[in-house]
Amino acid sequence: MDRPTFGHLTPELTPLFTDTYELRMMQAYYNQDHNPRATFSLFFRDLPPNRGYMVTAGLEQALHYVENISFDERAIEYLAEQGFDEAFLEHLADLEFTGEVRALPEGTPVFANEPMLEVTAPILQAQLLETAVINQIGYQTLIATKASRMRDVIDREGDDQGLVDFGSRRAHGTDAGIKAARAAYVGGFDATSNVAAGELFDLPISGTMAHSWVQSFEDERDAFETFVAEHGEDAILLIDTYDTVRGAEIARDVAEETGVDVRGVRLDSGDLAALSQAVAEVAPDLDQFISSGIDEYAIRDFFERDGVGVGFGPGTALVTSTDAPKIEAVYKLVAVERDGELKPTMKLSTGKVTYPGQKRVRRLEDGGAYAGDVVGLRGEELPGEEQLVTVVEDGERVVDLPDLEAIRERARERRHKLPYEHRRIEDPEPYEVTISDGLQAETEGLRERLEREVSG
Amino acid sequence: MDRPTFGHLTPELTPLFTDTYELRMMQAYYNQDHNPRATFSLFFRDLPPNRGYMVTAGLEQALHYVENISFDERAIEYLAEQGFDEAFLEHLADLEFTGEVRALPEGTPVFANEPMLEVTAPILQAQLLETAVINQIGYQTLIATKASRMRDVIDREGDDQGLVDFGSRRAHGTDAGIKAARAAYVGGFDATSNVAAGELFDLPISGTMAHSWVQSFEDERDAFETFVAEHGEDAILLIDTYDTVRGAEIARDVAEETGVDVRGVRLDSGDLAALSQAVAEVAPDLDQFISSGIDEYAIRDFFERDGVGVGFGPGTALVTSTDAPKIEAVYKLVAVERDGELKPTMKLSTGKVTYPGQKRVRRLEDGGAYAGDVVGLRGEELPGEEQLVTVVEDGERVVDLPDLEAIRERARERRHKLPYEHRRIEDPEPYEVTISDGLQAETEGLRERLEREVSG
Repeated sequence: MDRPTFGHLTPELTPLFTDTYELRMMQAYYNQDHNPRATFSLFFRDLPPNRGYMVTAGLEQALHYVENISFDERAIEYLAEQGFDEAFLEHLADLEFTGEVRALPEGTPVFANEPMLEVTAPILQAQLLETAVINQIGYQTLIATKASRMRDVIDREGDDQGLVDFGSRRAHGTDAGIKAARAAYVGGFDATSNVAAGELFDLPISGTMAHSWVQSFEDERDAFETFVAEHGEDAILLIDTYDTVRGAEIARDVAEETGVDVRGVRLDSGDLAALSQAVAEVAPDLDQFISSGIDEYAIRDFFERDGVGVGFGPGTALVTSTDAPKIEAVYKLVAVERDGELKPTMKLSTGKVTYPGQKRVRRLEDGGAYAGDVVGLRGEELPGEEQLVTVVEDGERVVDLPDLEAIRERARERRHKLPYEHRRIEDPEPYEVTISDGLQAETEGLRERLEREVSG
Repeated sequence: MDRPTFGHLTPELTPLFTDTYELRMMQAYYNQDHNPRATFSLFFRDLPPNRGYMVTAGLEQALHYVENISFDERAIEYLAEQGFDEAFLEHLADLEFTGEVRALPEGTPVFANEPMLEVTAPILQAQLLETAVINQIGYQTLIATKASRMRDVIDREGDDQGLVDFGSRRAHGTDAGIKAARAAYVGGFDATSNVAAGELFDLPISGTMAHSWVQSFEDERDAFETFVAEHGEDAILLIDTYDTVRGAEIARDVAEETGVDVRGVRLDSGDLAALSQAVAEVAPDLDQFISSGIDEYAIRDFFERDGVGVGFGPGTALVTSTDAPKIEAVYKLVAVERDGELKPTMKLSTGKVTYPGQKRVRRLEDGGAYAGDVVGLRGEELPGEEQLVTVVEDGERVVDLPDLEAIRERARERRHKLPYEHRRIEDPEPYEVTISDGLQAETEGLRERLEREVSG
């Protein structure tokens, strides 16, 4: 079958990257002439296991989707085939986003029940966005967090070791491979192996050699000599194809005999801490780069066992966030227009309660360290620094988003302001997030009214 | 920043979805005039936890990448900026795949150490493919397997309940959202909520309503009536926004009063088995669709506790394969041309040994059930049915791939041929995969020779 698998669609740009029920509701909103303004809030109810904080990422891509909604001919034709109404589809063909978006800037520590994105628009527009914005912000936030945890272990226990994303092959699809590289950079990585991500986001790219290079030659020495002849001082020689310590000796001899000050060697199997010490014995002048099964726990253990290395290449564990592969972010209706006014709303579903109304998020500081957050109603007087920023008004971008370097620096600074007990990679202390008096009163009042209505 | 996040690139189509080291090796192969024919094998060394088998998927997308390699001007320009050589880039601009691909057809049960893909081509070409083919086949195989486990629980303990993929929002990026829908269909799902996936792969799409629909109306009755007015017998009413049993009563009343035989109701929170029984009491004529935290374990528990439902909507657990979010598939050099002949090769890295040489995979049957596999050398005489198929020769497709319906049917049939003890969702019995005498002798001979060389 020679059908192109994406065809003319770039999935990130197609408004069809949405759930069927959004379009079914949208048609009903349209046909039933029920299109009140509404506010949806994107947040998570619980931190994943062993996470004391998350680091926001993916806003740029989410906004790109919001601002570029365009149902083209092929999309409209497909929806017509699926039985959607002609009048509704004509409306869709002209649809664009005219609302407001407030958001936590990328690189911000975020906790449970804090809106990462708040969208206010006619419900027909706002509803459509759910699937794509959760997808982009949820995944990148998961990976920026995983990366931040690794960088943090190095900051505390290491010696400024480099971190390079090696995960593309094990990412869940191509978009994940590319976005993981971006999110990892936000979280404190230095480079990626993914060339497409390097091109798209202007990230430093980095690469060494594979076992196949070594195996494709008669012997290891021949393989190393040929690679050094080609790449000179840029060469990093992979030494574990046959025997790691013997490989290190050959790498050292090749560097000495050719007179090329090669960049170093890579270890990719076995007891990495012990082997790195053995390699340092026989080849003390060669920098060691460590890969295979690397995550924040492995890096901590490597340091605890006095491993020797100048850089790590995490792969699978980074891009799948293996120990916590999901963040159950949701996009919930929190306010809806009634009699011309936005009124707070909530659902009561067991274990899935949502705080009603448009919000603000305030962060308190004490001696330069974060000392707790307050989530309150948008109009409420509250102490602390406001975290939510208005990024789109009347469908137009009203702020320039920072570039990736600035986002990465923001993530670094703010991570260091979060007291260490909340950053521990195991059993972190919960950070205090207070629900304001105003929001509590609103929540309880609304709950009582709804429960009265349901039982009445 | 208004830079398009994908730009003109469809990442699945760009040859830049590769690791930097592939291109660095390729340049060295080219400049050093070292471009032997080589065979790479894609396989995994261990089944993920609680998996007794995996179901192959993603071959169509992997072949699409292989057959459409094309370094366009923008890609070449980027690589030039990164310091790659002009002569090499000229070579890249004309690069196309001229080799052979053998593969396990999609929908085939596969076990550790069995090649899912075997690529033979000049090493410069074959090397490039590594990242993309692992990415596509690895992820879809993970998800087809997860889906197959859910379908299998229903086949054994259920009543032919429907399975609809609800996972797009929690997938790792957009490509995963779309490919998960495809892979889930291979594994036995009936439909997806993802509209883009429906359009691309001609999958049935399905959707109900969200809590936001209910909340956007004055009360639940108004919300249900309006939805039924719009969607009639297609309507599935979400009943847990305020109180599930009360919601069911309202849904029942709306159906009775309007005379519309609605499709049913959806439960999305709480103790689903218990609530579904309570709903069946008050609204016995309404079919129940169950979502929230659904996976194979939840489905089994739902049946064990006599839950009532005609369909399930798994989301996060399906698309992230939460209990086993990674399959460590690799793409390893197993043979390389020396003196004009393809010679088996292997690496000795601790815990990462690879069986050398081109392979065949034979499957034995006993009374219609699978009775063990044999992995041997390509030319070796072996019993059983051959599983690997040649799909590309001299760069040209030599077989038509089956359509998704046929792949899904293949997966179903073959799953049922695998004895149940290997399909258990917890602690499955290991399925026997024998390494043939020929392959064992080859492996041992090569290992001895390599170890002698290393120590010598």
